[in-house]
Amino acid sequence: MRELIGESLREERVAQGKTLREVSKSARVSLGYLSEVERGQKEASSELLASICGALDLPLSTVLSTVSEKLARQELLAKVPTIRPVASVAAA
Amino acid sequence: MRELIGESLREERVAQGKTLREVSKSARVSLGYLSEVERGQKEASSELLASICGALDLPLSTVLSTVSEKLARQELLAKVPTIRPVASVAAA
Repeated sequence: MRELIGESLREERVAQGKTLREVSKSARVSLGYLSEVERGQKEASSELLASICGALDLPLSTVLSTVSEKLARQELLAKVPTIRPVASVAAA
Repeated sequence: MRELIGESLREERVAQGKTLREVSKSARVSLGYLSEVERGQKEASSELLASICGALDLPLSTVLSTVSEKLARQELLAKVPTIRPVASVAAA
């Protein structure tokens, strides 16, 4: 979830053509911390997330909705049974 | 967001007729911590959230989707202009 939140925030920032520096200044978060959040290395608190979303003029609900959809796809993929490669079938 | 996540987890646990003790044991989280997460007093890490969802046999994506919808409603309400009470209109 942490990685997906970071990914969504980074995608939105890049789509808006904003730099890490601009968003970190506007959200009052250190540049290093924001970068770590975007890379899914740091867990952002609810308050910090709200602040970053504010700087991107993006409703937090939209981020969560995006993350929820991405996560649902991952959960589904995790349930799909693995297909055995043809080679191992031939060898059997 | 923290409060809404806690609320959603508590609603689901109660709907399943499970006690805090049962879920905390199954999720390997202390009872006190789980209780604080449910009351929105502690921020749950992504890993902890996944663990609690696992104990409830509930996809994390479902929790996020619920939280996203509740949050969207709150964001919308925050934008609705306040209606002046009739008394102040009559006095104007």
